Amino acid sequence: MFEKVLIANRGEVAVRIIRACKEMGIETIAVYSEADRQALHVEMADESYCIGGPLLKDSYLNMDAIITVALKTGAAAIHPGYGLLSENPEFARKCEENNIVLIGPGSAVMEKMGQKELAREIAVKAGVPVTPGSDILESLDMAYLAAEKIGYPVILKARAGGGGKGIRVVREKGELSSAYDLVKKEAKSSFSDDAVFMEKYLENVKHVEVQILGDLKGKIIVLGDRDCSVQRKNQKLIEECPAPVLSDELRRQMYEASKRLASEVGYVTAGTIEYLVKGCSFYFMEMNTRLQVEHSVTEMVSGVDIVEWQIRTAAGVEISFDQDEIFSNKHAIECRICAENSKNFTPSTGKVEMLHVPGGVDVRFDSALYTNYVVTPFYDSMLGKLIVCAGSRDGAIRKMRSALSEFVLVGVDNNRDMHMKFMNDNKFIAGNYDTTICQKVL
Amino acid sequence: MFEKVLIANRGEVAVRIIRACKEMGIETIAVYSEADRQALHVEMADESYCIGGPLLKDSYLNMDAIITVALKTGAAAIHPGYGLLSENPEFARKCEENNIVLIGPGSAVMEKMGQKELAREIAVKAGVPVTPGSDILESLDMAYLAAEKIGYPVILKARAGGGGKGIRVVREKGELSSAYDLVKKEAKSSFSDDAVFMEKYLENVKHVEVQILGDLKGKIIVLGDRDCSVQRKNQKLIEECPAPVLSDELRRQMYEASKRLASEVGYVTAGTIEYLVKGCSFYFMEMNTRLQVEHSVTEMVSGVDIVEWQIRTAAGVEISFDQDEIFSNKHAIECRICAENSKNFTPSTGKVEMLHVPGGVDVRFDSALYTNYVVTPFYDSMLGKLIVCAGSRDGAIRKMRSALSEFVLVGVDNNRDMHMKFMNDNKFIAGNYDTTICQKVL
Repeated sequence: MFEKVLIANRGEVAVRIIRACKEMGIETIAVYSEADRQALHVEMADESYCIGGPLLKDSYLNMDAIITVALKTGAAAIHPGYGLLSENPEFARKCEENNIVLIGPGSAVMEKMGQKELAREIAVKAGVPVTPGSDILESLDMAYLAAEKIGYPVILKARAGGGGKGIRVVREKGELSSAYDLVKKEAKSSFSDDAVFMEKYLENVKHVEVQILGDLKGKIIVLGDRDCSVQRKNQKLIEECPAPVLSDELRRQMYEASKRLASEVGYVTAGTIEYLVKGCSFYFMEMNTRLQVEHSVTEMVSGVDIVEWQIRTAAGVEISFDQDEIFSNKHAIECRICAENSKNFTPSTGKVEMLHVPGGVDVRFDSALYTNYVVTPFYDSMLGKLIVCAGSRDGAIRKMRSALSEFVLVGVDNNRDMHMKFMNDNKFIAGNYDTTICQKVL
Repeated sequence: MFEKVLIANRGEVAVRIIRACKEMGIETIAVYSEADRQALHVEMADESYCIGGPLLKDSYLNMDAIITVALKTGAAAIHPGYGLLSENPEFARKCEENNIVLIGPGSAVMEKMGQKELAREIAVKAGVPVTPGSDILESLDMAYLAAEKIGYPVILKARAGGGGKGIRVVREKGELSSAYDLVKKEAKSSFSDDAVFMEKYLENVKHVEVQILGDLKGKIIVLGDRDCSVQRKNQKLIEECPAPVLSDELRRQMYEASKRLASEVGYVTAGTIEYLVKGCSFYFMEMNTRLQVEHSVTEMVSGVDIVEWQIRTAAGVEISFDQDEIFSNKHAIECRICAENSKNFTPSTGKVEMLHVPGGVDVRFDSALYTNYVVTPFYDSMLGKLIVCAGSRDGAIRKMRSALSEFVLVGVDNNRDMHMKFMNDNKFIAGNYDTTICQKVL
C-alpha cells in the first residue's frame, strides 16, 4: 500500500480522501492555493504546501507544481478527486513519467474514454446500447434517409461541436432541411468544420449511472446504480441509490453492459458509466474515469468505501469481495448543498456564522465547512453533501426532510430550502421523474 | 403503527428517538423540565410540553405528569429512552392501566428481570451460565464449605445489599472468618437483614453484552455483541461491536444462551443481556429491558436501526429479517463524550462556544448539542456519542483517532483527550483488555 498520498484537490473531496487515507494508515499531503490557507483539507493533512494563487490555473490545475510537491515529499500516489485534473490524460501521463501512481485507470484508458466518438465505438464493440445515430452526413438526402431510419425527433450535431453550438433538434421531416443548413453554417463559422451527424433525440429520459470497481486481475464489480436526473443546467443537484422505478430486468442488463464495457478497456479502480434511460431501454452516454461527487450514496447502500477501494485497487490490491455480497435493501439520497442565492441561483460567498449539522443513524454530511470558514468566489459553489440512507425510499425521503430541517448554515446563502421543496414534491416522491423535473419544480 | 409517540426523556436519546420517529412518519411529543427550555429535543419534536422543575423528580421522573401529557395529546405510546423511567415497572404498569404502550417488553418482564435473584433463577432455568454461588449461608461452617466448592477468591454479599455496602472479597481461607463476621454485622446495621450469600469472585473479566430483538410472535434475533469493558467507576466510556478476542465458539454459545433467556421470558422489543467473560467462559450478569446508550455500535455493524425496530416490535410488527441476514465484517467503536474536568473527572458545565463535528463514511455523532447550548448541572454529564465503523478493528481505531482529532467542542470541558489516550494505548489496541483497563490507562 502507498505510504503517502498527495491530494490534488480541495473542498469536501479533499477532506473525504484525507479521511479515507487516515483510516487506512496512509500519510497525506495537501496542496492549496493562496485563497485556501484556512481550508479544512490544509488543516487535516499531515503536510500541506501552497502551490500558487487563487486562480485554478495557478494552483489546482498547475500540473508541474503538483508533481514537484509529490516528488519532493515522496508521495507514491496522487489522488485527483473529481473535476480539476481528474480526467486529464496529460496529467496522468506526467504522473506516469515521474513514477507516481495517479489514482485512476491510467492515462490510456482515460484518453480513450474521454473522446466521445471513440468511447461510443468501444461501447458498441462491448455490446452496450448507444443512442441510434448516423455517420457523417454527406448530403441533405443522406440526412433524410438517416432520419427515416432513426425516427423523429432527431438531433443534428456538428462533429466539432461543443458548448451548445452546432446542435439542433428536429422534430419532424418538414424541419430537417432548414435545420441541416443552419447547423452546417454554424459549424463552419464556429469550428471551421461543417461535418455534421445525426442522433436520435431522446426526451423525458432519466440519467442513470452505474458505479463499477475493477482490479488489476480483471475483476469487475458493480457497486450499484444511481439516479441523477435532478439537474439544473446539467448540474446534478440530488442523487439517489438505487434509481427508483428501474425494473429488475433493466437493471440486470445495465449491470451486465457496464461490466462488459469495463472489461473491454481493462478498467482498474472506480469508474462510472452514465446512461440515458427511457422506458425499458438504456443508452450509453459516457464513462467517467474518476470518483464522482455522488459516490457517497452508493457507499451508504452497498457498505463499500469507494474511495478506500479506489486507492487499494490503484495500488494493485485485489478486490476481496464478490458481486453477490453487494446486496442491500437500503435506499440513499444525497442533496448537494451549494452556496447560492435562492432566487436566481447565482453563487454566493461569505463567512459561516453558524453551522449545525444533523446526526443520527445513516445521516452523513461530507463537507469542508466549519464555523468561521469564509466561502470565497474562486471555486465551485458546492459546499457539501447531505446524505441519508434508510430501509426504504419513503423512509429516506422522510429522513432527508428531517435532516434538512435540522441543518443550519448561517452566513452563506444556500440551497437548503430548494432541496426541501424537492423532498415535498409529488413528482420527486413518485420517483418516475426525468431530467426535466427541475423546470417543473423550481 | 403508532401515530404519535411521547418521548419521556431528554438529551441525545430523546433526539435519537425523535429522528427515528420522523423517518417512520410518526408524530413526536417531547416533555421537558424548566431547565431544558432551550434543549434540542424540545425544538425538534412536533409538540413539546414543560412538565416541571429542573430536578428529575419534578419532571423527567414525574410519572403522572408524563402520562397526563400522553393522554392529553393522544400519544398511543411512550418511549422511555434509557435511564430515568426506562426500567421502572411501576411506570410501565401506569402506562398499561392508561392503555398507553410503553415501548419495551411490558411491566411483567421488566419486573422479573429487574430483581437480581429472580433474573438469576430464570437464567439458570434457561440454561444460561451464572457465576457459581451459594444459597443463604446459615453459619460460618457453611461458608467454609461453600467457598471450598466455589473456589477462592469468593465474594460475600448481603442479600439486602446495595451501593457497595455489605460486600467483601475473600481471597483465601484465612480471610473468610473475619470477612463473614464483618459482612453480617454491616448487613445487620445497614439493612436490618444479616442474610449473606457467596459468589465466585471473578477477576480480569470482560464486560460483554448481547443485543437481542424479539417480536410478539416469539421470534428472537441476536443483533450482535458489544465489549463494554472500558469503564470508570462502573460507568461505560468506550464500547465496541463486536467484542474483540471472543472465539467463534464462545460467541455462538453466548448468542444461543441469550436467545434461550429471551424466549424463556417471552421477550418483545429490544433488550440486552450482560455477561462477564473470562477466558472461554461467560456468566450471566443482568438483563437490561430497555434501549442502551451503546446500541449505536450494533446499529453501525448490523445495519439494523434498533430504535425503529424497538418501536415496530412494540407496536406488534413482526421482525421482517432472519438471523442469517445479520452478518457483517465491520467493526464499530463508540466514545462517550462527557462534560467533565479532564483532571479529576468531575462534571463540568458551560456554554458551547464552538462545535465542530467530524463527518464522512460511517462517522456518527449522536448528541443534543448545538452552538450556544448551555450545559446545566442538573443532568447526566454525557453530551453525545462519537461512533465510527470500519472494515476492521484497526481501521475503526484509526478512524476514531481521526474523528476525535476533527472533533472540536469549545466552552465545556470534556473528555475528548481521554478518548484519544485510549485510541493510542497498546492495551486497548490489543483488544484483550478487561474492566480494569481504566485504572491502567488513566
